[in-house]
Amino acid sequence: MKLVCSKDLLAKGLNTVLRAVPVRTTMDILKCVLLQADESGLKLTANDTSLGIETRIAADVRETGYVAIDAALFSSIIRKLPDADIAIDADAQNGIVIRCEKANFRISGRGADDFVYLPDVSANSSIRISQFTLRDMINKVIFSISDSDLNAAMSGVYVEVLGDSIRMTTLDGHRISVRVNELNGDYPRVSAIVPGKTFTDLSRILNADVDKEMKVSFARNHIVFEFDSTKMVSRVIEGEYFKIESMLREEHETQVTINKKEFLNCLDRSTLLINESDKKPVILDINDDEVSIRLRSAIGSMNELIPIEKTGKDLKIAFNPKLLIDALRVIDDETINVYFVKYNYPCTIKDDAGTYSYVILPVNFTEE
Amino acid sequence: MKLVCSKDLLAKGLNTVLRAVPVRTTMDILKCVLLQADESGLKLTANDTSLGIETRIAADVRETGYVAIDAALFSSIIRKLPDADIAIDADAQNGIVIRCEKANFRISGRGADDFVYLPDVSANSSIRISQFTLRDMINKVIFSISDSDLNAAMSGVYVEVLGDSIRMTTLDGHRISVRVNELNGDYPRVSAIVPGKTFTDLSRILNADVDKEMKVSFARNHIVFEFDSTKMVSRVIEGEYFKIESMLREEHETQVTINKKEFLNCLDRSTLLINESDKKPVILDINDDEVSIRLRSAIGSMNELIPIEKTGKDLKIAFNPKLLIDALRVIDDETINVYFVKYNYPCTIKDDAGTYSYVILPVNFTEE
Repeated sequence: MKLVCSKDLLAKGLNTVLRAVPVRTTMDILKCVLLQADESGLKLTANDTSLGIETRIAADVRETGYVAIDAALFSSIIRKLPDADIAIDADAQNGIVIRCEKANFRISGRGADDFVYLPDVSANSSIRISQFTLRDMINKVIFSISDSDLNAAMSGVYVEVLGDSIRMTTLDGHRISVRVNELNGDYPRVSAIVPGKTFTDLSRILNADVDKEMKVSFARNHIVFEFDSTKMVSRVIEGEYFKIESMLREEHETQVTINKKEFLNCLDRSTLLINESDKKPVILDINDDEVSIRLRSAIGSMNELIPIEKTGKDLKIAFNPKLLIDALRVIDDETINVYFVKYNYPCTIKDDAGTYSYVILPVNFTEE
Repeated sequence: MKLVCSKDLLAKGLNTVLRAVPVRTTMDILKCVLLQADESGLKLTANDTSLGIETRIAADVRETGYVAIDAALFSSIIRKLPDADIAIDADAQNGIVIRCEKANFRISGRGADDFVYLPDVSANSSIRISQFTLRDMINKVIFSISDSDLNAAMSGVYVEVLGDSIRMTTLDGHRISVRVNELNGDYPRVSAIVPGKTFTDLSRILNADVDKEMKVSFARNHIVFEFDSTKMVSRVIEGEYFKIESMLREEHETQVTINKKEFLNCLDRSTLLINESDKKPVILDINDDEVSIRLRSAIGSMNELIPIEKTGKDLKIAFNPKLLIDALRVIDDETINVYFVKYNYPCTIKDDAGTYSYVILPVNFTEE
């Protein structure tokens, strides 16, 4: 294999596929990135067997071929080279020479025989969606997956294509996060539970440009993301997702309209009085035109009044402030509506258009 | 105590004195910042008994008094308050109320009776120097102090006032770093070994503005830094510093003039091939008009040629590249002069004006 490519393109390509290189593994070949040079350029591939990523970059290929290289070493060498053209030669014994201006590195690669190639997935159906939208949806639900291994479905994001819309749901036993977006088109219904790590990795390499589209394909055991010159194939989590419709209940006895930023900043301050050994809740005391937000712990106490618009009954209810904060941080609206039933029922933060619902369980409290 | 001050000033003042709050201590009072409100405003003080910092900020004091508050809690509350005026009230029982717009915190302070006030130091002599210059000198020698406890002097920076100039020296057994700057004035000779931590803390809070002056005062057991509204009192390290004059030798058998950036980038790349268990040196093979820089390890090998101007003998010599890199990173000159004696003698990187000298020991090497 002999090729010349730009340092910038190679570094970007490596950055993309590095997300599929496992941090810890006993299989050395999984720590490698596969370089495949053919007539159309250079393809980089990495695959941790659960998630695989390949990306193509332009390269002047003088001799086709392939070689696997330790991904961490290779990318650290490339990053430290000057911003210029890089020549990479691999011989039949997988000896690799990397040259860039005056720099000249020799390292040992390995054969590609035991490399785990990306699975050849035959998709049942696929959708097109803007990269920005998908990334935005991911970032707005990913925080409420559970990192416990007790229930695999909880560690994933439930993705549903519902004709002309797409819905993502996560839950962790204390809360449910739901986001809905329109699709440009009408697609067959399909769903998958996507591992949280796959979406975290994907959201970091997606383009933030609103106009850039991507293709998402659903297969029996896999989901495939194709964008720009990159293809990402992930296993999906097997099994049924939770039935959450009944928990997104419509009835409420109290509705509060509140300035999101004031509410968020106040809750954020309340967490200063919480320590690990003494997790006091924040108490919301909802009255006609204001909510009193207070927290008292061994460290001290705080109390703030925030103006609200309220319909329905007065209510006193307590929460772990972190759960409210997580939801408020990903809501862009300036003013939000919060729906309550009773002190021991979950509250729901949702908008009229139905683009988001955040359901949060309250906690018990006593007030002296 | 009752006062009102701006959040911004208070947060900045706290940031300054927090550097003298120890991370770990069994004495709770050392974790506190002392607030003293008098007619001229608010004074904040923290003191870990080795380093003490006090700073004054403008405040509308309605009732003079003082109180000690847990520094970490107090500063985290202040940081999360809105950007507005903050009212702080302390009652006779050291109960503290902090109010800012709608926010309202109550925390417990403590009496100041056992607070360790800054020592009242009587200076033998003092100099004036620009904050920028002092900070710049610190940053250019601090990296070669030793963190070993075997020799206290090695953990400090040796500061010498030499009439119309100031010199700073550090060494760690493998290298010596020396910086000299002119002073505006002629001062009595005086010297002190300043703890590395004091200078690290000082360099973080000094102003980067070239025109801002500060006062540095030398006392028997202390050094005092006064700038803006801040006073920092540090113990000095007792004992004699090392005699280094003979090591800053004048003789050399080879002199090399080299582009600093090319040399630095090449050495930086060579470190990619070093791992913790196999610390191979970088070999400099100095010839008439170029130096070959190479490193070979179990990971791979590298080899670069950099053009030089040379006077004197050819030489092959090996170094731990990190030591060269540390020195090159803090040299601003585009082209540098490196002086060598023999393969087993230290090299010296220095300028003609005598503002810096970096002496670096070589290591043994074998080349197959």
